[in-house]
Amino acid sequence: MKRSGTLLGALLVALSLHAAEPADWIVAARYVVTMDAQRRVVENGALAIRADRIVAVGPRAEIDSKYTPKQRLDRPNSILAPGLIDTHTHAPMSLFRGLADDLRLQEWLEKYIFPAEAKNVTAEFVKWGTLLACLEMVLSGTTTYTDMYYFEEVIAEATKQAGLRGVLGQTIIGFPVPDAKTPQEGLARTERFLQKYKSDPLIVPAPAPHAIYTTADEVIKAARALANKYNVPMLIHLSETKRENDEAMAKRKMSPTRVLDSIGALNGRTLGAHGIWLDDADMKILKARGTGLAHCPSSNSKLASGVAKVGRILDMGIPMGLGTDGFAGSNNDANLFEEMDLAAKMQKVMSLDPTALPASRALEMATIIGARALGLDKQIGSLEAGKRADLIAVRIDSPHAIPMYNVVSQLVYALKGSDVNDVFVNGRIIVKDRNVLTLNAKEILAKAVEYRTKVAASVGMR
Amino acid sequence: MKRSGTLLGALLVALSLHAAEPADWIVAARYVVTMDAQRRVVENGALAIRADRIVAVGPRAEIDSKYTPKQRLDRPNSILAPGLIDTHTHAPMSLFRGLADDLRLQEWLEKYIFPAEAKNVTAEFVKWGTLLACLEMVLSGTTTYTDMYYFEEVIAEATKQAGLRGVLGQTIIGFPVPDAKTPQEGLARTERFLQKYKSDPLIVPAPAPHAIYTTADEVIKAARALANKYNVPMLIHLSETKRENDEAMAKRKMSPTRVLDSIGALNGRTLGAHGIWLDDADMKILKARGTGLAHCPSSNSKLASGVAKVGRILDMGIPMGLGTDGFAGSNNDANLFEEMDLAAKMQKVMSLDPTALPASRALEMATIIGARALGLDKQIGSLEAGKRADLIAVRIDSPHAIPMYNVVSQLVYALKGSDVNDVFVNGRIIVKDRNVLTLNAKEILAKAVEYRTKVAASVGMR
Repeated sequence: MKRSGTLLGALLVALSLHAAEPADWIVAARYVVTMDAQRRVVENGALAIRADRIVAVGPRAEIDSKYTPKQRLDRPNSILAPGLIDTHTHAPMSLFRGLADDLRLQEWLEKYIFPAEAKNVTAEFVKWGTLLACLEMVLSGTTTYTDMYYFEEVIAEATKQAGLRGVLGQTIIGFPVPDAKTPQEGLARTERFLQKYKSDPLIVPAPAPHAIYTTADEVIKAARALANKYNVPMLIHLSETKRENDEAMAKRKMSPTRVLDSIGALNGRTLGAHGIWLDDADMKILKARGTGLAHCPSSNSKLASGVAKVGRILDMGIPMGLGTDGFAGSNNDANLFEEMDLAAKMQKVMSLDPTALPASRALEMATIIGARALGLDKQIGSLEAGKRADLIAVRIDSPHAIPMYNVVSQLVYALKGSDVNDVFVNGRIIVKDRNVLTLNAKEILAKAVEYRTKVAASVGMR
Repeated sequence: MKRSGTLLGALLVALSLHAAEPADWIVAARYVVTMDAQRRVVENGALAIRADRIVAVGPRAEIDSKYTPKQRLDRPNSILAPGLIDTHTHAPMSLFRGLADDLRLQEWLEKYIFPAEAKNVTAEFVKWGTLLACLEMVLSGTTTYTDMYYFEEVIAEATKQAGLRGVLGQTIIGFPVPDAKTPQEGLARTERFLQKYKSDPLIVPAPAPHAIYTTADEVIKAARALANKYNVPMLIHLSETKRENDEAMAKRKMSPTRVLDSIGALNGRTLGAHGIWLDDADMKILKARGTGLAHCPSSNSKLASGVAKVGRILDMGIPMGLGTDGFAGSNNDANLFEEMDLAAKMQKVMSLDPTALPASRALEMATIIGARALGLDKQIGSLEAGKRADLIAVRIDSPHAIPMYNVVSQLVYALKGSDVNDVFVNGRIIVKDRNVLTLNAKEILAKAVEYRTKVAASVGMR
């Protein structure tokens, strides 16, 4: 008796120790869409968070029995999913949202975008534009975004203030821009930027030479060297328009990808945006170099740039994530739910094949494949123990969300950015019940309205 | 002095009489997008409603000085626009939402849709499915919808209960279906339906022979005769798939449009759904017959049916509205904001022309052109004195709605169904602050969840 009593006691002690394992949060929901290697969907699931990490994911009962959390969030009418990853944005352009739509590229650039940027883009503009974009992104479920703009250090500070994760590319370009008179100045400012944020928990700083048609080879090579020195990705626009491809062929007898490869610019972590006009030889190069891509279906269709061969690219093993691109004429919002839905639909109708780019694939692009494109798949892109706690709770109790036969299909084809209810980034809750806890929304929206007047006047609008 | 005093007095009396003009409602907003012939957008605008009609639209100060309303709704942070018009739906299929996605047509139909319909579609199913669809439609700004399904009288009652306007087509088809064993039975039930609703203020009843490939010529002719007898439109699927066109050419040496025209089936009000594979000769026939069309970009892309030549069709003067189609595999929701956005983007990318289908055109398709396609443009489709008071208030104070440079562009490319805050149909407020006043949402959603279990079991799903 004594012996079994001791055993029982030991067992109870073990159990109670077990139950006492501390956590900062338990988050529970009707479904947990993990996007792990098995693509597990856990019904009545939960996860435990400690500091910035997920420590466990599983059935709710199991998580509850094992962890004692400081705080908990119960969402029986929601799906928990990995936070969405935007692989291509120009966040401060939110202040130009819809400034010029339905126009040909030249008119759009020359009458609106270039004058508007020349006359308006300052560090202050960039700050408020980024904060506005962060509000919008986080309220539609984006937890990581990948930016290319000017004054990127200002964007980094706004991103940290919002509590979002950012892969932030300081633009380097061959003509005078608001934050640099020359590409050399741009490179110098980029290195200061990389220095400053190289160890930041939320920011991955990056050099972003704009594109081969705007930036000299030597400058792109210098940007590549900087990226490799700091072990960060280089961001660049790649084969977005037919014109870009045609000009490269005419001037250099090479596609844009081959131009980059010929100067060694793909030797290291690279994220190419768009990739619409890639041919098979380009794809083989990108695969060999480990380059990631960003697919931007809203922008590519709205600007009539074309449709990337997403199925072929993914089948070759090139990680292609989703991007929302700019706000002025090209999208005009930053909502990855819309990009998932559109990516799937565009691939189907272009190939006249309804099985092309299924929902599961579209969701992968917005999560784990997007993480891989950025070289961040060890940290983010799925809900698994050891990864950063970047996650969203998406409500499933609205009329458009009911009934639900397939959780993943519902996420892609029926649920909306506006169904996102709560958001965690790096273990911190930054949206609760659609309130952004980190930002003063009222102040940001008022500033955006002020900028509207200024920007409109600068291009001769009312 | 006396004389001028008399004049002044008369003037004051006139003014006060004027000011006392009664109205049931004044609705005021930051912008009123009228969609009238001049496409006026009134800043700080308002409209007055008496009974089911709009009696005046204009600057707020003017409307306020002229009318004394019983009730008023002030929406300084909203756009007022005509209620959106859905020209093609299968409302009760909401209960099959996402039942089977990313599949080839045959597998989709044979493994899922046909068995699910055969085993589940009853009058009761149709009632709850319609109520669910009405909840979703009205919460994304649809005030009129155009349906084709079974038990259409049940759909009519649910639609009236919701307070929506419906052009409701009783399906007639060549094989046994849940509400009719034979097409003759279908025709008889259609005539009873037309009789019952011919004078309804909200319902336009219609015969809906399914398509030429499912319904015999004689049956379509009988449906045509019924439509003409009751002066209502006939609804039919038309050139949705390449296969439909190819089979008609192979069997009858005529396109589907020419088949219909050869049997006189286009002699009267007709609404053809999809029209993807129409050629120029077809379009000329449709123009000559005054046929309207429904463009369903979500469904057409998701099912990989193809892309209608919308620009060409509209340029020829054929009214082509927007439709959301079914919920099971083909959309999977009923949100015309998404259809406007997608219609514009698809036309641009297919033609590689960013000026194709501009925002103004997409909004017309969802409002006044849609009304014209249904033959209802005297009653609905714009905010003008004399028309039925069908209108929506759309919030413009969210992060994704700010800044706003162009009201129409914002409606199409940035605003969402979830921004719809208030809805009036036929002079009655049916949504206020996103609460549907006419329906018991909780009960409907609970029923939909119940049906989910039943439907899933019927096709061997969990």
